This record gives sequence, C-alpha cells and structure tokens, in this order.
Amino acid sequence: MKRIGVLTSGGDSPGMNAAIRAVVRKAIYHDLEVYGIYHGYSGLIAGQIEKLELGSVGDIIHRGGTKLYSARCPEFKTLEGQMKGIEQLKKFGIEGLVVIGGDGSYQGAKKLTEHGFPCVGVPGTIDNDIPGTDFTIGFDTALNTVIDAIDKIRDTATSHERTYVIEVMGRHAGDIALWAGLAGGAETILVPEANYDMEDVIARLKRGHERGKKHSIIIVAEGVGSAVDFSKKLEAATDLETRVTVLGHVQRGGSPSATDRVLASRLGARAVELLMEGRGGRCVGIQNNKIVDHDIIEALAQKHTIEMDMYQLSKELSI
Amino acid sequence: MKRIGVLTSGGDSPGMNAAIRAVVRKAIYHDLEVYGIYHGYSGLIAGQIEKLELGSVGDIIHRGGTKLYSARCPEFKTLEGQMKGIEQLKKFGIEGLVVIGGDGSYQGAKKLTEHGFPCVGVPGTIDNDIPGTDFTIGFDTALNTVIDAIDKIRDTATSHERTYVIEVMGRHAGDIALWAGLAGGAETILVPEANYDMEDVIARLKRGHERGKKHSIIIVAEGVGSAVDFSKKLEAATDLETRVTVLGHVQRGGSPSATDRVLASRLGARAVELLMEGRGGRCVGIQNNKIVDHDIIEALAQKHTIEMDMYQLSKELSI
Amino acid sequence: MKRIGVLTSGGDSPGMNAAIRAVVRKAIYHDLEVYGIYHGYSGLIAGQIEKLELGSVGDIIHRGGTKLYSARCPEFKTLEGQMKGIEQLKKFGIEGLVVIGGDGSYQGAKKLTEHGFPCVGVPGTIDNDIPGTDFTIGFDTALNTVIDAIDKIRDTATSHERTYVIEVMGRHAGDIALWAGLAGGAETILVPEANYDMEDVIARLKRGHERGKKHSIIIVAEGVGSAVDFSKKLEAATDLETRVTVLGHVQRGGSPSATDRVLASRLGARAVELLMEGRGGRCVGIQNNKIVDHDIIEALAQKHTIEMDMYQLSKELSI
Amino acid sequence: MKRIGVLTSGGDSPGMNAAIRAVVRKAIYHDLEVYGIYHGYSGLIAGQIEKLELGSVGDIIHRGGTKLYSARCPEFKTLEGQMKGIEQLKKFGIEGLVVIGGDGSYQGAKKLTEHGFPCVGVPGTIDNDIPGTDFTIGFDTALNTVIDAIDKIRDTATSHERTYVIEVMGRHAGDIALWAGLAGGAETILVPEANYDMEDVIARLKRGHERGKKHSIIIVAEGVGSAVDFSKKLEAATDLETRVTVLGHVQRGGSPSATDRVLASRLGARAVELLMEGRGGRCVGIQNNKIVDHDIIEALAQKHTIEMDMYQLSKELSI
Repeated sequence: MKRIGVLTSGGDSPGMNAAIRAVVRKAIYHDLEVYGIYHGYSGLIAGQIEKLELGSVGDIIHRGGTKLYSARCPEFKTLEGQMKGIEQLKKFGIEGLVVIGGDGSYQGAKKLTEHGFPCVGVPGTIDNDIPGTDFTIGFDTALNTVIDAIDKIRDTATSHERTYVIEVMGRHAGDIALWAGLAGGAETILVPEANYDMEDVIARLKRGHERGKKHSIIIVAEGVGSAVDFSKKLEAATDLETRVTVLGHVQRGGSPSATDRVLASRLGARAVELLMEGRGGRCVGIQNNKIVDHDIIEALAQKHTIEMDMYQLSKELSI
Repeated sequence: MKRIGVLTSGGDSPGMNAAIRAVVRKAIYHDLEVYGIYHGYSGLIAGQIEKLELGSVGDIIHRGGTKLYSARCPEFKTLEGQMKGIEQLKKFGIEGLVVIGGDGSYQGAKKLTEHGFPCVGVPGTIDNDIPGTDFTIGFDTALNTVIDAIDKIRDTATSHERTYVIEVMGRHAGDIALWAGLAGGAETILVPEANYDMEDVIARLKRGHERGKKHSIIIVAEGVGSAVDFSKKLEAATDLETRVTVLGHVQRGGSPSATDRVLASRLGARAVELLMEGRGGRCVGIQNNKIVDHDIIEALAQKHTIEMDMYQLSKELSI
Repeated sequence: MKRIGVLTSGGDSPGMNAAIRAVVRKAIYHDLEVYGIYHGYSGLIAGQIEKLELGSVGDIIHRGGTKLYSARCPEFKTLEGQMKGIEQLKKFGIEGLVVIGGDGSYQGAKKLTEHGFPCVGVPGTIDNDIPGTDFTIGFDTALNTVIDAIDKIRDTATSHERTYVIEVMGRHAGDIALWAGLAGGAETILVPEANYDMEDVIARLKRGHERGKKHSIIIVAEGVGSAVDFSKKLEAATDLETRVTVLGHVQRGGSPSATDRVLASRLGARAVELLMEGRGGRCVGIQNNKIVDHDIIEALAQKHTIEMDMYQLSKELSI
Repeated sequence: MKRIGVLTSGGDSPGMNAAIRAVVRKAIYHDLEVYGIYHGYSGLIAGQIEKLELGSVGDIIHRGGTKLYSARCPEFKTLEGQMKGIEQLKKFGIEGLVVIGGDGSYQGAKKLTEHGFPCVGVPGTIDNDIPGTDFTIGFDTALNTVIDAIDKIRDTATSHERTYVIEVMGRHAGDIALWAGLAGGAETILVPEANYDMEDVIARLKRGHERGKKHSIIIVAEGVGSAVDFSKKLEAATDLETRVTVLGHVQRGGSPSATDRVLASRLGARAVELLMEGRGGRCVGIQNNKIVDHDIIEALAQKHTIEMDMYQLSKELSI
C-alpha cells in the first residue's frame, strides 16, 4: 500500500481531529501518502480530496469537531453512490481508507469492503454505541461536558431545593446517561435499555426528601423520551416543582479529554497498521483495555449493551 | 450598630457566596456580629436564623449557589409578612440587614426600609438587570458559561455547516445575549430591547453563506420568545437546516469568575460599611468602575438599558 | 460485619471524596454503620473518628481533595503505632477498614491485615503507580489538568515559536508524562522508565524545526530530574530559547473527571462488598476494564510498568 | 485612508485574536483593506505582510495566542529599524497601523508616530500595566486561569493543612496578584507596589491557624521576588511546612474570557475608527467603563498604579 485516504462521517465527536492526526502522522512515519476526504461520503462522491502533510494536522489534537468536516449522505446508501466513491478513490490512487465515525459510517465502510475496497472503521461518536469497542472516541469528553452541566445545575438546585430533569444524548444507548448520572450523583437515571416505573421514581424522590436531601437530579437519555414530557408526568403525579434542561449539541463539542485524545491516537494509528498489513474490512476498538480489531461485518451484527452492574450501583449510591 | 443580618433571595447567581463571605468577614473585622438568615424572606419570617463566624464562610468564595439558600416568598409581599420579618429581626437583636439578590429582593428591602428597618441591597443575579449598577454579581460567570457552550456548539456547527439557534436567559434584559453573542462571534443576536426583522436576519445568513461561512450561530434572549418557535419560522422562510439549544439553568451555576468574586467581595464589604454609617435604604453597585451606592427606592424607579453601541458593533463584526 | 471505618491517606487525589461517598452509601445500603477516620493513620492513632451518615457525604462527589483530610504518619510505621490504631478501631467497635490512598497507605493496610485486622485498599493517587490496577483514582483528572496546561502553553509557544519544557508529577512512574504528553502532542516525553539520549532529543527538535514547526513542547516526569536542569543542558547544547514550567500541586486538585468519579464509586463499593464477604487483606482495582481484587501483600510485591507501545507511538506521532 | 495594517507584538495575551478579528472586520465593514503583519515589528522590517479577508479571521475569536505571531525586535529600537519598517508599510501602500501589545509595542508605535506614520495602540497584555486603560486585553482571562489554579491548590492544601506559596506573573505590576488573590481568598498577597513585613505575614498565618484555618495560601507577584526564596525565608522563621508553585506561562494562554473578547472587540474596532478619522498617535482603552483614547506619547509618560482600597480589603477579608 502506497497511498491511503481518511474521512470523518456522521455526527462529529471530540477526538476526531486527534484520530485524523494519528492516521496522517502514522502513515507518513511509514512512508505512506495520505489524502483527506472532506465532508464524509458526500465529499468522497464529489471528489473533495486533498493530500495531507505532517503540518496539515499540526495544532489540531486539542480541537473539537473535525477538520475534514462531516455530512450525511443518503446517496452513499445506493450502489451507484458507492461506485462513484470507489471511482474517486481510484482516480486519486488511494488504495485503502480509514473511516472515522459511528454506525452509519461503518455501514458505508462495510459496503466498500464488500465491493473489494479495503476500509478500516474507527469508532468516533459520543454515544458509545459502536460494536467492537468498550469505548468510542468522544464518549469521555461528552461525559465530562455533561457532569460539568450537572454540577452547575446542582448549584442552583441546592440553592432552591428543587427537582431538576436533565435530558442527555443517546437515542439508542444509555451510556451517557448512565455514566454521567453515576458520576454526577443523580438520584434517578432513565436509560433506553431498562424500563422505569414512575412509582419507584417517586418513592425514591420522597425517601430522599424525607431524609433531608436539598435537591434531586434526574437524568433522562433521549432514547427514553422527552424530558419535558417526563417532567410533566412527574409534576402531575406529585406536588414537586421541576425544571427541565435539554443539554443538546453542547455535548458534541469541546476540546477532547486526555482519554479521548489518547484513544483516538491509538486507534487511528492501529487503523493504518491494519491497512499496511493488507487487512481491510476491519474495525478497531479498545476492549478489556487492549487495542483490538474485528471483522467490520461481524461487528455490525453485534448488539451494544450497557453495564447493568453500574446501573444497579447508581441506585444503591443514591439512596 | 452591633449586629447585622444577611440573606440571599430570588434566583441564585454565582458569586453570592463570595458576597456572603465579604459581609461576614468585613462585619467581624469591625467587631460586629453577623447572623445568617436561611431561605431568603421565607426563612426570615420563619426565624431560620443562625449566628455566622469567620469559619462559617471559609472555603465558599469559589462555590456556586448560595450557602444561605434562596426561596420565593409571596407572603413577604404582604404587610403582614413584612411585619413578621421585622419581628424576627428584633427578636434576634439584628439592627441592619444586607439583602443579596435581584429585583424582587430589592422590593423586599425597600419595604423593610419604608417600615424603618435599615437594609442595603447587593445586586446578585445573572441577568444584569438591576438598577444602580453597571454589572451584577453573577453576570460575568454566566457569560463565560454561555460562551463556553457557544464554543462547543461551534465545533459541531463548523463540522456540519448548519445554523444553530441558542436561547439564553434574560426575560427582560438582553445583556447576556448581547455580551455573549458579541464574545461568541454570533452572526445574529436577538434582544428584548430591540425589534428584529426576519428578512434582515435571513439576508445576513445568506450573505455569510455566500462568502463561504461554514456555520451560523443565532443567540436569542428568552425575553424575545422561544428559540424553538424562532427556529421554526426561520426554517419555514428558508431552506436552512437549524438546530436549537436552550441553555437553561446551567447558566445560574458554576464556580464564580474572578471578576464576579472581586465584585461580590467589594460590594458585600461596602454594604456593611453603609450599615455601620447608619445609612440604610441604599443599594450598592459598580458604576463607571467605581463602587457606588444609591437610594434603593429611587434606584428601583430607574430603567435598565443595554449598550446600543455594542449591539451595533456586533452587527458590524459579524458581516 | 456491623461497622466499618474509612480513611484517606498519603497525597490526596481528585475522586477520593467520590470513593468515600461510595463506601458510606454502599455500606448504609447494606445496613452497616460507617465511621470516618480523619487525617489518615495519624487520626486513627489519635482517635479522630466520627460516625458518617448518608447526608455526611452529600454534595461531595464533585469536589477535589478529601473530606476526611490526609496526613503523613511516620508513627504508623512502628508496631507501637499500629497497635494504637487497632486499639482505637476496637474502641469504636469497627470491624473492618477501607483505606483509600497510595503506596504508603497500602503498606499500613498490609500491616493491619498482618495483625489480623481486615483492611481493603482502594487505589487513590494521581501517579497511577499502584499495583493491582490499570488506573488509579485521580489519574484521569490529573491528565486533564496537565493537558489543559499544555494547551495553554501551546498558545503562547505557537505565538512566540519557542521550546517549552514542562515538568509533571511522577516520582517513580512516567504515566502522567506519557499519557499527557501523547494527549498534548508533545514532541518529546521523558519518563523514569526509559533512558533518554540528549542527541536524539535535539535531533527531533531540529527535524521539527526544519519542516516548519512553530514550537516544541517537552514533557519531563519529575522522576527523570528537574526540568530546569534539563532545560539548561538543552540550551547549552543548542541555540534554542527555552522556557520552563513546573506544574506542581495544581495537578492534585480540581473537580474529578467523570471517569475518576465512576471508578471511585465502583471501587469504593467493591471494597465494602469484600469486607462484607469477610475478605480483608485485599486491594481493589480495575484491570482489563473489569473490577478486580488482589491479595494486598502480593500486589505490593509487584512492579508497576508503563505501556511501552504508547511510548513508541508518541515518538511516531510527533515526527 | 484606504488600507491599514495590524500587528501583535511583545508577550502574547488571550484576546489578541479577538482584537485582530475586530480590526479586520471593522475595517472591511467600512470598505478599507487590511494587511496583517506577521511576527510583530520583526516581520514588519522583513516585509512578512499579507492581505487579510473576512474569512482570514473566522473561527479565531475564541482562540488564545495570536494568529499573527509575536516576536521581540531589538532592531526596531534603532532609527534604522524604524525606517525599514516605514519603507515596508509604504511599499504595501499601508497608510495606518494598529499595534496590539504591551509597553514595548507602544514604544514602537510612538516612534512610528513621531516619524509621521499614524499608529494606534491597543493594550494587549495579561499584566494590566498599560497606561491609558483600566484593563488590558488578557488580564481577565489570566485572572481566571490563576484562580482556577488557586482553587485546585486549595483542594490539596485543605486536605493536607499546609501553607502554599503561589508565584504569579507581574514583573512591574501587582494587578494579577492582587485581583487573583482577592478572588482566590488568599491569606496574604505580596505586590511590588507595597512593601511587606515578614513578621506581619507570620502573625496573620498564626492568627488564622489559631482560629482553626486548615490551610493558607500566599500569592507572590514575580516583581516582588522569587516565591521559592520567600518560601525559604518563611520556613526559616517559622515551623511551617510550605509548598511552592510557580504558575509560569500557563497564565498567557487559554481561550479568552467573555470580558476579554468583548473588550478586544470594542478596542480593536475603536482603533480602526481613529485611523479613519485621521487620528494617529493615539492609544485606546477602557476607563470608567467607557471606551476612550489618549495621546500615546502622553499616556506612556503616566505611571500605572494598583487600587490600594482593594489591597486593604483583601487584608480585611482574610482575617
């Protein structure tokens, strides 16, 4: 392999730039050429492709977002779109591709792989819901953003002795809600992976109130439903005064945490190694604290789960 | 004067603790005794009053929220409630009161003053809408919280090339929107003090787009109306894809900024001096970079305004 | 077991409070009583011991430092000191002890265990140098503090095109230097676990300079020697202008990161479980992303190492 | 005036980029052309000059450092250097110059002015020691960086009950020490503008200790002397255990605070207005909360002072 490409796709996440940097520098270290594809699969089809040098990725390891931009690309779900993409890759002499992104990005990489073009997927999303890895790039930063918000809201919650409901990202996965809720000392955490019982939620709030708790914080993953709706139900069933905050897109931004930068650096570099070894069709990850790789097609067939012992622990520690 | 009291009231703001600390330490420095009244006017009526020592306010200068808690108190709007409050103050031998809070808190202080009990108001609110001061305690911290959120959202806005609408606090005053918008490099800022023209907003967005801007950020003060509604109107009138974030109560929390801690320290100390000088019925503030005080009744009659030259500047710098 | 104790010892680290909270809440959840021992082993000998309730650990999960204070205690290295400690534990009816701290703290716990008193060690130190765990409580937060400093210094380094030498903590272990250096994009990282060759360091700097790098950042673990001395050597051997920053004790403080709070919560809770199972003489940790426990005596015999593949990676990515 | 230039010079400070952006956008808004001069006066002499467009200053308002780089330039202190600079300015058709920087930068602007070339100075330095303004661009951000460090050190100071000595920047001005010390709740603040009495320092520490203070923090401005030396003297005169931290260059970096971004925007824009009005030889600032301008030669003759009432207040509040 002489020349590889790299793109970011789907929702951006903090650490994507660190991953791009690692891909570029690792490749150049091994005398490969690297081309950056802008705007994800959409830019791939359109040929928005440029050579990257060592200096192209200078001063980006600490920046949120993605230097290569991202975009959704319905066209790439079609065979025609995929063929156009492969044509562009060939035109630029690119022999292997690193795709940094989430579930949808992996689907594209899988398709290219099936068409015989070697791709390696790198898990970049704040949602932590990519198979084949315990942690995705951006998850740790998003957690820190969420607990910073919880800490701030707790200041005012404590001062006013109210119940606050905070909606966090996670359409399919409750990881952000669970980890941030545990780290933030939330009284109640609602995740899509577990049903909740409103009576149990209320009983917990009452118990806390009786033993003198000044405030309560409830974390709701967006996959469970709207925090606003939940809050209305809670107010209807009790005499509690609630306030709702939907954290939204702040969770995707910010300078990546140390953990995310290190993870991104290791995974980006490993992806290049796999391409150099001629092993396309893989996705990289960290499992059991080791850098690993899996068949991307098999990985996509797996189901993401949350750690139920942590869910139980969160209940025990917020009695 | 031998013994003074201090309470916080209304919406909490970062720096209230620094103000409480200054009141307590300054008073003790001059051999006064200080009593803390918990839960604002509600706790005053209920007699939730305790002596504070130097150590009572140790390790709080950097904490958000208020150690004395806050609460709304409709009862204190009645003469009966006010009389109960004065009774409690007399019972504890308190001869003067420092009230830290916003507009409603000042109204209570004004009432006590009219009943002959010396009060001094200290402006604590993130909204920056208290008369008699250029800046309120908490405003600077809230601005930094908002621009941190704007910076994070810009990461993702840049990566995806979308338009983001961010709703910030300020029911009556556009100060947070204006300052944070200017500091955050927002393309458009909507404040309650100035009407906006949707066609002008759209024209600005288009101009930016034409010259290659990757994203646009629009800041909406809550007093202008819901960011969600505005966003719908904007989408209906254009083909723009927008995302909305309502920052909510995170804006009230967090460790106070240096500026807020210094301001709180100076104003809290000045309030004690006024009581020692036998000058109740005042409110303190900073104007033209000097610590000042005004008649609280006269101050409440004034109208808060925003700096229109900054509003104009924000337009010029976001061309 | 009916009643357990908890203490923190040695250098404090962010997340110790979250661990204390987890010990207290988990214990009370299982109907145990918990006593807090203040000022580490020194307070144990002196009987500075108080009952902790659910509310005693409210509002501390996000605070740096340790609510139970810490102290060095040479006396506890003597048999006499240890016996005094056991006497106090018996006097208060405490049947098991959770010790949160670093190497020295584990030594104390080992001694108590050898004297027949069941102890469980929880790894709390920023240095990440405790055997039996991949990560210690506080390490992740310290990393984020260090990269925040590196990012700030890079701002000024870039503006002035100079070489900056940053000394970070780690007397025996290079983990902070290695991880923060990799995450911070440092050109060179010096750790106690690997010798460095000044000529190689200079060659790297020159190569970077030749290809247009605006600045260079060198991270030195304190165990390697003084950054000031290193800097002098570097200046003597080249014509580079260097600036030195010794980060110092800021690295021990700050609100714990999400990862540290979650780790502290899981390890603190696991320590209580072990005591409940009658399994003293253990230390808990996270290895291969699983919560584990080891014989504390065996663990102390092991040697801490750094991940050499990450060290190599840091060189490849900073070409 | 048709075409202006802008440069940054001397030590960089957070907010310089926001000031550059304001200069560029304000000028283009009024149909001027703007040229960026790289590496300060050194680049001016060397002709490192490029046209800047609206997009050249996109996405920099929130970044530390300076996009135009900075450098020291002894040559510009000579008449010959100054003449070379003017030659370059003429060569590029530049008719007026905005100089963003500190004292030394103003000296250069003054010289150019004396040679008949219109310059306007914008005060950019963290030290807050520029005449003609109450606050310099970067001061507020540096304060927040310092209090963040103090807060972190206090975590560990509280846990260990020690005395910490923190050295902050300020060779000639004690502003950072004074403001950050007051905001950080320091027990003692040493500034170059006031002598200190070691016996008084010790007496304060003892008083605090006697009333149960867990820790003490002493802030030393670098202009007073080395914190290490001070610490040795303190240890020699008492039995206190001290720890020293020299904050160093982290104080120059970081994303600018809201206040600094707003100030930079206003001052940068005002500088352009002055050039448009044909009023060179001025320096801009904020005084009494109003944007002002002064004759740069007269301003340089003034002496910077600190607010002694705040110094006194810091003593009263840390009893």
